[in-house]
Amino acid sequence: MPQVTPEQALDRERLHELAQQLRVDSVRAAAAAGSGHPTSSMSAADLMAVLMARYLRYDFSDPENPANDHLVFSKGHASPLLYGLYKMAGAIDDEELLTFREFGSRLQGHPTPEIPWVDVATGSLGQGLPISVGMALAGKRLEAADFRVWVLCGDSELAEGSMWEAFEQAGHSGLDNLIAIVDVNRFGQRGPTMYEWDTTSWAGRVEACGWHVQEIDGHDAGAIDEAYAEALAAGAPAAIFARTKKGSGVAAVEDEPGWHGKPLADPEAAVEELGGVRSLQVEVQSPPAARPFEVTCASVERPSYEVGEKVATRGAYGDALAWIASVDEKVVALDGEVGNSTYAERFAAKHPERFFEMYIAEQQMVAAAVGLQTRGWKPFASSFGAFLSRAYDFVRMGAISGADVKLCGSHVGVSIGADGPSQMALEDIAAFRAVLDSVVLYPCDANQTVELVEAMRERRGITYMRTTRSATPVLYEPGASFEIGGSRTLRSSGEDAVTLIGAGITLHECLDAAERLSEQGIAARVIDLYSVKPVDAEAILRAAKETRALVTVEDHWAEGGVGETVAGVLAEAASGTPLVRLAVTERPGSGLPGALLAAAGIDAEHIVAAVEQAL
Amino acid sequence: MPQVTPEQALDRERLHELAQQLRVDSVRAAAAAGSGHPTSSMSAADLMAVLMARYLRYDFSDPENPANDHLVFSKGHASPLLYGLYKMAGAIDDEELLTFREFGSRLQGHPTPEIPWVDVATGSLGQGLPISVGMALAGKRLEAADFRVWVLCGDSELAEGSMWEAFEQAGHSGLDNLIAIVDVNRFGQRGPTMYEWDTTSWAGRVEACGWHVQEIDGHDAGAIDEAYAEALAAGAPAAIFARTKKGSGVAAVEDEPGWHGKPLADPEAAVEELGGVRSLQVEVQSPPAARPFEVTCASVERPSYEVGEKVATRGAYGDALAWIASVDEKVVALDGEVGNSTYAERFAAKHPERFFEMYIAEQQMVAAAVGLQTRGWKPFASSFGAFLSRAYDFVRMGAISGADVKLCGSHVGVSIGADGPSQMALEDIAAFRAVLDSVVLYPCDANQTVELVEAMRERRGITYMRTTRSATPVLYEPGASFEIGGSRTLRSSGEDAVTLIGAGITLHECLDAAERLSEQGIAARVIDLYSVKPVDAEAILRAAKETRALVTVEDHWAEGGVGETVAGVLAEAASGTPLVRLAVTERPGSGLPGALLAAAGIDAEHIVAAVEQAL
Repeated sequence: MPQVTPEQALDRERLHELAQQLRVDSVRAAAAAGSGHPTSSMSAADLMAVLMARYLRYDFSDPENPANDHLVFSKGHASPLLYGLYKMAGAIDDEELLTFREFGSRLQGHPTPEIPWVDVATGSLGQGLPISVGMALAGKRLEAADFRVWVLCGDSELAEGSMWEAFEQAGHSGLDNLIAIVDVNRFGQRGPTMYEWDTTSWAGRVEACGWHVQEIDGHDAGAIDEAYAEALAAGAPAAIFARTKKGSGVAAVEDEPGWHGKPLADPEAAVEELGGVRSLQVEVQSPPAARPFEVTCASVERPSYEVGEKVATRGAYGDALAWIASVDEKVVALDGEVGNSTYAERFAAKHPERFFEMYIAEQQMVAAAVGLQTRGWKPFASSFGAFLSRAYDFVRMGAISGADVKLCGSHVGVSIGADGPSQMALEDIAAFRAVLDSVVLYPCDANQTVELVEAMRERRGITYMRTTRSATPVLYEPGASFEIGGSRTLRSSGEDAVTLIGAGITLHECLDAAERLSEQGIAARVIDLYSVKPVDAEAILRAAKETRALVTVEDHWAEGGVGETVAGVLAEAASGTPLVRLAVTERPGSGLPGALLAAAGIDAEHIVAAVEQAL
Repeated sequence: MPQVTPEQALDRERLHELAQQLRVDSVRAAAAAGSGHPTSSMSAADLMAVLMARYLRYDFSDPENPANDHLVFSKGHASPLLYGLYKMAGAIDDEELLTFREFGSRLQGHPTPEIPWVDVATGSLGQGLPISVGMALAGKRLEAADFRVWVLCGDSELAEGSMWEAFEQAGHSGLDNLIAIVDVNRFGQRGPTMYEWDTTSWAGRVEACGWHVQEIDGHDAGAIDEAYAEALAAGAPAAIFARTKKGSGVAAVEDEPGWHGKPLADPEAAVEELGGVRSLQVEVQSPPAARPFEVTCASVERPSYEVGEKVATRGAYGDALAWIASVDEKVVALDGEVGNSTYAERFAAKHPERFFEMYIAEQQMVAAAVGLQTRGWKPFASSFGAFLSRAYDFVRMGAISGADVKLCGSHVGVSIGADGPSQMALEDIAAFRAVLDSVVLYPCDANQTVELVEAMRERRGITYMRTTRSATPVLYEPGASFEIGGSRTLRSSGEDAVTLIGAGITLHECLDAAERLSEQGIAARVIDLYSVKPVDAEAILRAAKETRALVTVEDHWAEGGVGETVAGVLAEAASGTPLVRLAVTERPGSGLPGALLAAAGIDAEHIVAAVEQAL
């Protein structure tokens, strides 16, 4: 063992005092709130004290400074600790600290970007690390920046597969600006974790992912200090497995089960045991000056397609993405190893330095997108629509973060054909509509797709586009304009008997049906409801007033899709116009697209039959 | 190198012939279909030929035999290979093989349980292995059975975090009846995988999870044979990383990129190169006799609660689960390390041998439930409703499998209070409604919860129950009966002016509002819409006819929940009765439940205001 110099000893005493303050403030905040996670905060107090005092480079007066390090609490429930750090940095005062979890306080139960120093909402375990991978990728691959991403992880959350997607991706990408600090306090919510303090299995796995790994005593300030120094010099992503005691510092709860997510029984005694309330502040290091960087911007022409030409909207998505990235250098793209299906490969071919291959790891893909947008990038992430369901919790949390993430799901609906139901997104409209402040777009032709991709770029928030596998005829002129929240009436006479409402593939079936109906002397209005959320209620209500029945047709389950969206508009307006909803209601199989559309009852023939019955 | 005896040489020649047949049939099936994945099948042909000829124990004439091994194609796109195996086993004929991907054929693009020898649908990568963990858990922990679970995995799917949840859980549970065969053909869909043929990183990680690991040449029948023998004797879950060539056996595609998911350009030449069409059959080993096993069934009384008592429905869920498991020995429970919140711990306390702690790995939890139900168990899996969104793709695929899985999500809505939005399920009704053949239940009191848990037990399929964090008054008498698809009118006079429709927590707000309205002389009907899917359309339409307005109130986003369900019923019936939908529309924060219900506009006061405005 090396000798500790008197100077080091003094410094360690100071670090201990800082850690004790963090413990005290965690206890006090939770006591004031009557809830929260003081014990999960106390275990990591030494780890965070050393980080704040000696390693973090962050200007709390300028959270937008691009050279700031990032500090992500992947174990978001340790929010009292995070807020204690803000107090220690002088960013908040003690009074605000004690508003923890109060209605209206920005110091919520789990951190959210309502707080200026928080990049992303955490609290759904296993997300902070994969999101941090996105930040670190931005630093390494796009910005050649000096900032580091520090992530405080819990041991329990190592059970989430998403953590392992992150370890793999970070190792593969050589993210030496990423440091994962794992607070191994051996207790989860309801009892011991799988491995408790035996960090061997995790360490072995993380090392095999190409990380630099250390296993330390997480209450030894000297060891923590050395570990951080070693991590920064590692030349690889660095993981520190720190064995700690939950509730450390207070005998009544230290390393005791049953104290997860609860204020201490006797907070006053605990504060006394910890040496009383302190108001120490640390001078957090300033970041170095931000380095300028350049983005290569290949010139790509705006794609346009001739009316009548047959083009898959997924292809137009790829073309449009390549184009908008040439006019907006902030546009980046990610794909889940299906870029030759989603056509994100067309972006990759033109802008390879802004393309991120995330392999078949949809959670990591969406998480990386969330991470990238914290640095001002505009990420478009694509996969089969069906497989985006894999990342649903990441989308949900992204919305809580107010993240600016654009998603594209290809191969939707039964119309994909022979691959069968495992590959068919039939729930994506419902799932993405039920996301805070989301937008859901479903273009029917290539020129419309281009316009809507451009609209996605401009719009901040979670925006989802659903694209079609098969080629469909181009209906709109190049440059025709389409707004989020709009619709397009494609067929209308003064005397429409019925309104057919479709989007994407079914719009073409609606047009076909309208043609057949007109042969029978029935005039049908056709509405292209390309913006499913927000929806053009006015057009729907006009149709409800001017025609005798509405028929919605969608290549999606009956729940939560186009039909229910329209139903909601009608019911709220107390419209008595009958609505017929055609949608997929039974398990589809394999087959040709046409056969499957027919089997699902959503092709032109079934639309005609539905109209005949409705009228 | 050991010498190969003449007998072994003969045998290997036979194994090679079998593998060639599998390659030929993969090429032919895909050629007939005009689509499919022959090259991904050919890489694993030797692996599967040896398995079928020498290791698999399976009675194809009796797929229900509980002693049969399980064979799961986690890489479901290699379906031509699987169907080729069925032909080789004499289970299907050549004519049927060539119906691959035809409309109406059970030989779909990806395997589904429409085929009697397929346990679960695969095709969403990363699911077969975690589901197999569930089967293996059943064999080891519940049935003391001799069957083995063989899983053919792809290398690309090792990027999915769910695979790593499975490796960890299987290692932790010592599942020595599980053998993962990884076909490392080094190509994904659009190009090389992260590690190509370097299996070191994966092998290191899997070993660190407690598996027995081998790395072999996947085209060497002798090596494969030895690897299987070693795997069976390993006393631990066994992984075999087999380096193979995609498209092996046909020079035009062997180890060539660009041939993923495509029929061969010249299938006839390929068949010739492979030695022509064969019709070899193997005598697949019969399984040993099934062993009887016993299930311990602790006696637990049916829970019942007094009217007026305050009980959280999540608590009643735990009580009910413990009870039904005492009357039905097939009931098992899983939880994502939050059993003291979901109250699955009450089941665990009574029936520890039928409880599975899945730690914070929701994908593995749902996957294990899907695996367990293939063996006739009736799994109930619980976590916070918000975190079940993590497993959405597994639920989607479970529905395609027709799996009998019961899910319970606790802590739904803003009414959970101080923990904040990351913990609030606000999209779960929408997401679970948009699942094939699903049922969505949302009880408002403890006695109703008990009845509905019993209904879940009886019902086969994906059934979701949403439970409330806080204690709410018991409204119904013990033993009151509630059916899936029903509703309950709790307040009604002959002259109701308005109908209030709630479920769960909001039902109580509706009752409170009705009381306040009656003080103003406004009679309000109150409907408890505890079965959100299927919904009691009759009760809704009756209310629409008999009252002047409907108000739905839900602790959920406005999309895809109770309000849209009701809107759908009204619009399809062409009801002109106005509907007002109260739901959560803005990002909630932390606070007390009452404050958050008020802030979201879904408490009694806002209901009263909405009624006043509507009338």
